[in-house]
Amino acid sequence: MDLKPTKPLSGFIELLPAQQRCFDECARRMLNVLRDCGFSMLDLPAIERAEVLTDKDNWDEIETQMFLFQYGDTKMGLRYDGTVGLSRYVAGHLNDLVFPFRASQFSKRYRGERRQRGRYREFYQMDMDIMGINTLSTNYDAEIISVIQRTLNSVSEFIGENYVRIGSRPFWDALFNWLDMTAEQKKAVFVLIDKKDKMEPSEFVAGIADTLENPEKEQAIHSVFENGYAGLQNKTDALDAAITEINDFMRTLDFMGVKNARIDLSVTRGLAYYTGLVFEFGLTDYPELGTAAGGGRYADLVGKFSKTKIIGVGAAIGFSRIFVALMEMGKIDLSQFESATDVAVLVMGDDNLPYAMSVLNTLRDEKIPSVAFLDTDKKFKSQIEYSDKILAKYSMIIGEDEVKNNVVAVKDMKSGNQQTLSLSDAIKLVQKDA
Amino acid sequence: MDLKPTKPLSGFIELLPAQQRCFDECARRMLNVLRDCGFSMLDLPAIERAEVLTDKDNWDEIETQMFLFQYGDTKMGLRYDGTVGLSRYVAGHLNDLVFPFRASQFSKRYRGERRQRGRYREFYQMDMDIMGINTLSTNYDAEIISVIQRTLNSVSEFIGENYVRIGSRPFWDALFNWLDMTAEQKKAVFVLIDKKDKMEPSEFVAGIADTLENPEKEQAIHSVFENGYAGLQNKTDALDAAITEINDFMRTLDFMGVKNARIDLSVTRGLAYYTGLVFEFGLTDYPELGTAAGGGRYADLVGKFSKTKIIGVGAAIGFSRIFVALMEMGKIDLSQFESATDVAVLVMGDDNLPYAMSVLNTLRDEKIPSVAFLDTDKKFKSQIEYSDKILAKYSMIIGEDEVKNNVVAVKDMKSGNQQTLSLSDAIKLVQKDA
Repeated sequence: MDLKPTKPLSGFIELLPAQQRCFDECARRMLNVLRDCGFSMLDLPAIERAEVLTDKDNWDEIETQMFLFQYGDTKMGLRYDGTVGLSRYVAGHLNDLVFPFRASQFSKRYRGERRQRGRYREFYQMDMDIMGINTLSTNYDAEIISVIQRTLNSVSEFIGENYVRIGSRPFWDALFNWLDMTAEQKKAVFVLIDKKDKMEPSEFVAGIADTLENPEKEQAIHSVFENGYAGLQNKTDALDAAITEINDFMRTLDFMGVKNARIDLSVTRGLAYYTGLVFEFGLTDYPELGTAAGGGRYADLVGKFSKTKIIGVGAAIGFSRIFVALMEMGKIDLSQFESATDVAVLVMGDDNLPYAMSVLNTLRDEKIPSVAFLDTDKKFKSQIEYSDKILAKYSMIIGEDEVKNNVVAVKDMKSGNQQTLSLSDAIKLVQKDA
Repeated sequence: MDLKPTKPLSGFIELLPAQQRCFDECARRMLNVLRDCGFSMLDLPAIERAEVLTDKDNWDEIETQMFLFQYGDTKMGLRYDGTVGLSRYVAGHLNDLVFPFRASQFSKRYRGERRQRGRYREFYQMDMDIMGINTLSTNYDAEIISVIQRTLNSVSEFIGENYVRIGSRPFWDALFNWLDMTAEQKKAVFVLIDKKDKMEPSEFVAGIADTLENPEKEQAIHSVFENGYAGLQNKTDALDAAITEINDFMRTLDFMGVKNARIDLSVTRGLAYYTGLVFEFGLTDYPELGTAAGGGRYADLVGKFSKTKIIGVGAAIGFSRIFVALMEMGKIDLSQFESATDVAVLVMGDDNLPYAMSVLNTLRDEKIPSVAFLDTDKKFKSQIEYSDKILAKYSMIIGEDEVKNNVVAVKDMKSGNQQTLSLSDAIKLVQKDA
C-alpha cells in the first residue's frame, strides 16, 4: 500500500511544539489585554451561508478567493474574515447586547489564494470592534488604536516596537469632489492610491495621468503625498471637515497615550466597507512584513441583515501573518519555549509504580509541570535520556530504595547533581527554581 | 433589498457573551491541567486532503458525514476528528518529536450529520494522546484516564462529578475466538454490543440469537453482561491474558488516584482503530448527556503515513457536547460571567477627555478590567445607564470638577454610594473588591 502524504496542504500552517507554545503565549497575553479592555470574546461559526459571505455587487475579488461548497441543498463557505460573521451575529442579537458593544474574535479564516510568504490559506486574525446604534464618537476609533497598541506592546519582546499610520476616506471623497472627478475617475484613482505602496513611482504617476488627463488635477493628487493637506484648507466645507477630523483625531490619539502615530493619506484600506478614518499598524523592526494590523470606521455594519443602523469601528491584527512569518524568518528566540516540563518522574520497575504515581500526582496537584516515564521496564539510561531530551529541569528517580525510605532521588539535569530528599523538600527545590 | 438571515446555519453553535466567557474559562482551566501534565498543544489545519481523511475500506460510515469539497484540482475536506491530523503530523515529524510524545489538541471539528440535541456540525473536542515508538506500557492508558479526570475535576463546579467505565477489545476478540465464531459473526455481534446501550434488551437478545443461532454461544455473550468475566478464566490463554490485563489495569488506575472507575465490557468505542483497552467517561449528574469523553489504545496510529510503528493511547473530551448542552439545559449558573468589567469611566464632555483617558489608561495599566463611555456628548443619565447595563462594579465619573481637582467621582453601582477620591485611592478601592 502506498503511504499517504505527511505534509499539510500548501498554505496551511503546522508548528512544532515549541513554536506552538510561543504562538499560544502571544495569543494569551494579547487576549488578556483585550479582555481587560472590556472586549467580549466571540467564537462564531467558521462556516456561513454563501449568501452571507458573498454579495455579487461588491465582492467579486474576494469571491474568487473563497472556499465555497455545497452540502445537501445549502451553498456555504468558510469565512474569509471576521466582519461578515460579526455583522450577522450583532444583527441577530440586537436585544441581547449592550451598546456600545466591544467585541473581539480570535479565530481561523480561510482564503483560497495561492501561497506567498506570510500569506496563508488558513490563518488566525485577532479582531476587535466597537459598535454603536445610530451614533459612535470617533473617540472610539482612537480607543481601538490605543487597544491594538496595548496588545502589540504586550508581546514586544517578540515583535519589537510598532507604529500606526492614519488615513481618511472622507478626505479623499472631499478632494475628489472638489476636483470635480467623475465616479469612474474616483474609483480608478482610489485604486491607484490604495496600491501606491506596491507600485513604482513612475507607474503611479502614469496611472493618475491616464485616468485624469488633466495636469492640474493630477498635481493636486500628487501634492497630497508631497505636502500633506497643507494648502487644501478653505476650499470646500467637506475638505475642511475632513482635515479638522484628522487633526482632532491626532490630538485624541496623543492623550490616549498612543505612540508613533502619524498621518499618511496613502492608507486607504482598499475598497471595502470603510467610510471614515482608517489606519494601519506596522512593526518598526520588520517593514518587510507590511501591515501588522489594520482597520477603520464603517457607517453601516449590519445593513444587509437589519434595518437598525449600527456604526462600527474595527480592526484586525494579522496574527498568523506576524508570528508565523517571524518564526519562519528565525526572528523569534524560542529557547524559553523549548521545555514544557519541570520534572520527569522515572520509574525503575512496575513494583515502584504505586509510589511513583503518588509522587507524580502530588507534583501535579502542586501545579508543577511534570510527566512520568511509564515504560518501567526500560533501563535507567533510556529513562534519563528521555528526561534529557524533553529538557526537564529535574528528574525524580524512583527505585526500590526510594520507595522503602519514602524519599525521592532528585537529579538536577543541568548541573548533574543528584540528592535524596523527602518529597516535600524536593517540591520546595523545584518551586524555588521555577 | 431583502435582508439576509441572521441565524447561523443549523447545527452551528453561537453563544452570547456571558456563555462564551464561561466556555472560555472552562477551556482555560482544562488546558492548563493538560499543559501541567506535560502535553504539547498542537493546532493543526482544519482542512486536510480527502485522501488523508478517507480510506474507502473502513470509513464509509464517516465519509457520508464529512464536509468534502474541491478547490482547484485538489479534493479536500474539513476534519471530523483530531486523530487523522495527528497521525499525519506525527508521521511527518518523527525526528522532531520526543517519544513517548504527549500531545493535546483543542479545536473545531466538522460533521455534516443532521442536528440532534448535543450533536453539532461544528464542535470543539479536546484531545489528548500519548504515543510511543514500537512500545508503550498500558501504564500510559491509566495516565490518560487520570489526566482526563483531572481536567474534568478542574471544572467540577460546573459539571459535577464524573465516572469512567473500562472496556477491552482483546477480551471480546478472545471470547469470540473461544466461541469459534466466523469473521462475519464477530463483526455483527461486536456492532450489537457497541449499540447495546441504545437498544431495547429484547432487541439485543434477538440480534444475538439471529447472528449466532446457537443458544450456548448466545448465553456466553449474555453472561458477560450478567456476571462479568467470572467463569471465563482458564478457557484460553488469550482470554486469561485479556482478563489479567483488565484486573492489573484497574489496580493501576486505583493507585493513580482515579475515582469512580469500573469495568463495563459493553464499552467498545465502535469499530474504529482501537485495539486494546477502551474507556468512556460520563457525568454522574447528567446521564442524559451520554459519553463526556472516550478513548482507548490503538496498535498502529500512523501506518497509513509511515513504516514506523507508533503505538498510541488517546482520548477526546466532547467539549462542546458537554458545555453547550449544559448551558442549553440551563444547568450552568452564568451569574459570575455576566459582567466582564470592573470600572466604567464616564466622561462628561470632550473637554474632559484627556484627563479621563489618563484615568482609563492607568486602570488598564493596573490590569483592572475597564471601559470608557466615549460618546461624551451624551447626558449623565444615558452614561450611568450604560454602566448599569454592562454590570460594571464601579463608575468613575469625570466632569469639570474632577479634572480641576485631579480626582475621580467613584460610584459603587451596587450600593449607589458615591465618593470623591484620588485616582490611587480609587484604584485601591476597586482592587480591594476584586
